[in-house]
Amino acid sequence: MRRRDFLRAGALAGAAASVPTALPALDTLFAPRRGVGTAQDPLRLNANENPLGLGPAAREAAIEAFSIANRYTDNQAAAFRARLAQHLDISPDEVFLGNGSTEVLQMAVQALGGEGARFITADPTFEDVAGYRRPLGTELVAVPLDGRFSHDLERMRAEAGRAGGRAVVYLCNPNNPTGTITPSREIEAWIDDAGDDVFFLVDEAYFELVDDPAYRSCIGRAVARRNVLVVRTFSKVYGMAGLRLGYGVAHPDTVARMTAWISNNNTNQVAMAAAAASLDDTAYRARSLELNREAREFVIRTLDDLQLEHLPSHTNFVMHRIGGDVHSYIERFADRGIAVGRPFPPMSDYNRLSLGTLDDMQRWADVIRDFRRRGWV
Amino acid sequence: MRRRDFLRAGALAGAAASVPTALPALDTLFAPRRGVGTAQDPLRLNANENPLGLGPAAREAAIEAFSIANRYTDNQAAAFRARLAQHLDISPDEVFLGNGSTEVLQMAVQALGGEGARFITADPTFEDVAGYRRPLGTELVAVPLDGRFSHDLERMRAEAGRAGGRAVVYLCNPNNPTGTITPSREIEAWIDDAGDDVFFLVDEAYFELVDDPAYRSCIGRAVARRNVLVVRTFSKVYGMAGLRLGYGVAHPDTVARMTAWISNNNTNQVAMAAAAASLDDTAYRARSLELNREAREFVIRTLDDLQLEHLPSHTNFVMHRIGGDVHSYIERFADRGIAVGRPFPPMSDYNRLSLGTLDDMQRWADVIRDFRRRGWV
Repeated sequence: MRRRDFLRAGALAGAAASVPTALPALDTLFAPRRGVGTAQDPLRLNANENPLGLGPAAREAAIEAFSIANRYTDNQAAAFRARLAQHLDISPDEVFLGNGSTEVLQMAVQALGGEGARFITADPTFEDVAGYRRPLGTELVAVPLDGRFSHDLERMRAEAGRAGGRAVVYLCNPNNPTGTITPSREIEAWIDDAGDDVFFLVDEAYFELVDDPAYRSCIGRAVARRNVLVVRTFSKVYGMAGLRLGYGVAHPDTVARMTAWISNNNTNQVAMAAAAASLDDTAYRARSLELNREAREFVIRTLDDLQLEHLPSHTNFVMHRIGGDVHSYIERFADRGIAVGRPFPPMSDYNRLSLGTLDDMQRWADVIRDFRRRGWV
Repeated sequence: MRRRDFLRAGALAGAAASVPTALPALDTLFAPRRGVGTAQDPLRLNANENPLGLGPAAREAAIEAFSIANRYTDNQAAAFRARLAQHLDISPDEVFLGNGSTEVLQMAVQALGGEGARFITADPTFEDVAGYRRPLGTELVAVPLDGRFSHDLERMRAEAGRAGGRAVVYLCNPNNPTGTITPSREIEAWIDDAGDDVFFLVDEAYFELVDDPAYRSCIGRAVARRNVLVVRTFSKVYGMAGLRLGYGVAHPDTVARMTAWISNNNTNQVAMAAAAASLDDTAYRARSLELNREAREFVIRTLDDLQLEHLPSHTNFVMHRIGGDVHSYIERFADRGIAVGRPFPPMSDYNRLSLGTLDDMQRWADVIRDFRRRGWV
């Protein structure tokens, strides 16, 4: 498998189940990240991961959890759920766990989908909801983002109001892949005004990273009403994408409705132990947020310098113009050992750049400046 | 929460999503197993776990995988799938991964269920299939085990042959909770004779533990036909129940059909790294099997001595008569700091005893002998 093909397999292949015909060796993949930027181990600036890695407290707790790696997880899951509820200042029966937030989304899509349901999403937005709705044949209505690259709530509301069936509105806020926010005031106004036949599935994967007074979590409305579910993850600010842990917050009746579709023992001991330690590790969290701010500022300065337009980012990635087609842009970066973005049609002249360490971003900057010299951006 | 209530929550509560109102502290639950047998940390002889714990090679690989705990799992999952296929001597597109074998069962039940489908299972058998079929409203037909405590294939076959709709036959072999096997010759004869409207979902969670010439895996038929899926797990002989990793083996077309219901990034880095190391660790595997044999022989000697009837076990648990009702039996053991079994109606005068270390089983034997003196068994 050529380097470019391997990177493409990682960067572009959407299906989790797809298996390339040739693969790098396992020992290479699981080894510590030495020689990052080689064919086998590209610098990953394409998956919105936290470059800090697992924090020291989380790592220690995870190692301790090996002592129960042979035990099923029911007791620990119940205890962690209670710990998480305490952290969120809600009741344990208002939160449920997922094998990553994507499993929470899957449960919701399955519980809410099927005949007579219309899923209304932004376009582009995070693709998992659209994917999960397929097996039950749920109708999808994709509404283009508005001029601010926010959700076009007016048009989404019109779609939700169409006669017949119930509507499920997916609000990814901040939105992936644009990094933009939709003002909370506008979302709250719609929720407060909506009837029971409209369900709000609010994805707050990046909420910890937002630092804008126009943005608030929907958790309060999620526990107060029966038609709102908030979805969160430990993959971003807590750096645990590879351990798999997410959660949903909702009214207990809604929690019961969603968890009818749960997979038994769906969370692992290591992730729960690491997450519990992470909730207490305010130093790691602060460093994580600070690094993200610094990397984002560096990227924005670089893009401004190159006069490449970028969207206002409230996340750990920046969506920016590339002055060309994203497919060849991704391939050219792959040839330099860096995985960037993936195509998000219809925004084919944009790339979604995930933020790494400052060293990582310096490497990215060196390459994109070289591309400018070559006339490629 | 009283000790007995806590144990009952762990031992009897079926729903993964249920949250008791009071809970032991997280630090107690995640701590190494010191003082096992206390209220907070009962000796678990109720969940068919491997008492050896994570093997040294698996542990080392798991710690190494912390270096990519912050990374999504797509590359590692594809590579691990290839490694597993090599181990099974099949093609990578004939195997898919699950977050424990239970997620593989869930995918299968969802992919095969719905209107017009009849699920035919033994009674009693592993409960997850019956649970997962509920949201889609799939019909369930539970056929009592035969006089050998094997699947009553004749009656199941008659149920599958009823006019109208398609049949999904769940064969848990060896069967949980009885530990008994259904002769492979009889299963193979049915599979070879069945039409495309009968699907065989074969759960081989305990297959590595079987040492009987009448038993063979169904993997060969799974890859050769489109109506057979074999489900396996790393929870038993590999001691990884808390890390969550299982897999399904089937024809590529069937794999595609099942994975339409997969949750994205469904396996974690730690479990895959530990599993890859475990496949190479033949010493751990041998010790695991040997310990299980020794513990099983000790239990059988004890039961024979007490003249308590037991079923022939091909697994890491023994189903045996208790001369009374299982609910009070479980509570009495809980009071001694030992979690045993859970009720498996209609076998309410049996307990399913999971095997621990020899020390664990000595503790169990001391208690059950005391119960005999008290006239409780």
